[in-house]
Amino acid sequence: MIVALKIEKVREIVKKAKKKGKLIGFIPTMGALHEGHLSLVRRARKECDFVVVSIFVNPTQFGAGEDLHTYPRDFKKDKNLLKKEGVNLVFYPKVSTMYPKGFSTYVEEVSLSKYLCGKFRPGHFRGVCTVVAKLFNVVNPDIAYFGQKDFQQAQIIKRMVRDLNFPIKIRVLPIIREKDGLAMSSRNSYLSPYQRKVAPYLYKSLILAKELILKKRYSPSKIRKEVKKVIKENIPYAKIDYVEIVSPTTLRRIKKIDKGEILVAVAVYLGKARLIDNILVRVR
Amino acid sequence: MIVALKIEKVREIVKKAKKKGKLIGFIPTMGALHEGHLSLVRRARKECDFVVVSIFVNPTQFGAGEDLHTYPRDFKKDKNLLKKEGVNLVFYPKVSTMYPKGFSTYVEEVSLSKYLCGKFRPGHFRGVCTVVAKLFNVVNPDIAYFGQKDFQQAQIIKRMVRDLNFPIKIRVLPIIREKDGLAMSSRNSYLSPYQRKVAPYLYKSLILAKELILKKRYSPSKIRKEVKKVIKENIPYAKIDYVEIVSPTTLRRIKKIDKGEILVAVAVYLGKARLIDNILVRVR
Repeated sequence: MIVALKIEKVREIVKKAKKKGKLIGFIPTMGALHEGHLSLVRRARKECDFVVVSIFVNPTQFGAGEDLHTYPRDFKKDKNLLKKEGVNLVFYPKVSTMYPKGFSTYVEEVSLSKYLCGKFRPGHFRGVCTVVAKLFNVVNPDIAYFGQKDFQQAQIIKRMVRDLNFPIKIRVLPIIREKDGLAMSSRNSYLSPYQRKVAPYLYKSLILAKELILKKRYSPSKIRKEVKKVIKENIPYAKIDYVEIVSPTTLRRIKKIDKGEILVAVAVYLGKARLIDNILVRVR
Repeated sequence: MIVALKIEKVREIVKKAKKKGKLIGFIPTMGALHEGHLSLVRRARKECDFVVVSIFVNPTQFGAGEDLHTYPRDFKKDKNLLKKEGVNLVFYPKVSTMYPKGFSTYVEEVSLSKYLCGKFRPGHFRGVCTVVAKLFNVVNPDIAYFGQKDFQQAQIIKRMVRDLNFPIKIRVLPIIREKDGLAMSSRNSYLSPYQRKVAPYLYKSLILAKELILKKRYSPSKIRKEVKKVIKENIPYAKIDYVEIVSPTTLRRIKKIDKGEILVAVAVYLGKARLIDNILVRVR
């Protein structure tokens, strides 16, 4: 496994692999890797001939007062994990490599980004789109992998790829959960033992939402209230950013439960950890 | 020469050429081709093995009330010109091909775009960056060619290519002028015979600016006044958007004439034709 810090090095190595006809798989990450990331790596290993992982805590996707500086970083551990998974190339750039002096170009998705997390984290998805566009141009992959935990992010990236004509396939893979249901996240490390113990109620509240949706007897607003109740009653001091029931394609609120796919998404602060989770429900 | 209307067709043809080791040159245009465009094509023919020209009047770079609908279009004539020049592939997409339903992703340069034309055409450079990023991803060229007449555009594209890591070299080639000095532009066709007769005073005013700069005795604001005087006295009813004396790298106004490169740039309406021109002056 090669670790490259420089853009030119990545280009050179990928070019060589492409010349040999290899299919390039790519997983962009911010490090602090867990089984969610590794599930993406494993799928890439199955589908592609050459797997690239980037590890970069991207400053432009953090807002003022967010956790840029405390975000967990452990490159040695990440490197060992990726080596075991048979990754071919790790791109581990410095901030100054990705954002040189006078950097002034951004990629912005202006429709899907307005909803859900976009309302609470202004500029977040602009930072995500910008860094992912950059990484796509550096790595030049055939297939890129994203986790469904960041459902909105994955939808926005798919839109960006279509709109800007990136010649890249996007795969979105299922959420990986702890045994008790908590969605894996690098930010779970922020949780106190008590917070960690009650955090699975987020997922439990989504399961409830799914059950209520499938009963087809309740309005979205009624279901949102019930979800909030579960969270508030079981996670003391939780600060709810949102509980939303939306169309998975437009991310807009739905007015009633109809046939088709419905996304239930939540974002909740447990102390300083902002946790997100979601569930996709198919109504027949 | 192949004419492709579809993105997939372009990808397929360029992929084949690349497999044969051919270097791809690309000239994005809005058609209504003149000797300025053709000078770019000729340079591409010299430097590259396979030359792609796109012809697309890009709606997202026109503001409300601008000349999107009257912009000159003559595909047959353009096609014949490009054929004569030995172009290999013309990409001639429909608006719905470039901007499908629900299009919502834009590329925006936020620093250089604030000055010169950016002040008078809000959203213009966002449209330019977006369509050029798209065309780069469709055509996947090694070298792309731009004219210095659109000096600010060329600087912004260079910045975008650096910031978003497009693996593309940008060449900016000199302004091509009519015998009387008028910079060639598709928009010159809007000029009445009288307007056409006085239009070369734009270039004459730039020559004056250059002379005054090289004397090193006048302030930029004094020189700007003199340039405006020449325009107003010789082009009746001209509406001046700006006459600016700026750093060619930051596009910001300079306060005094120092050693190095200085850009003088003008934008003037002659009737409904908004003409731009510029001159680069090296002070020793």
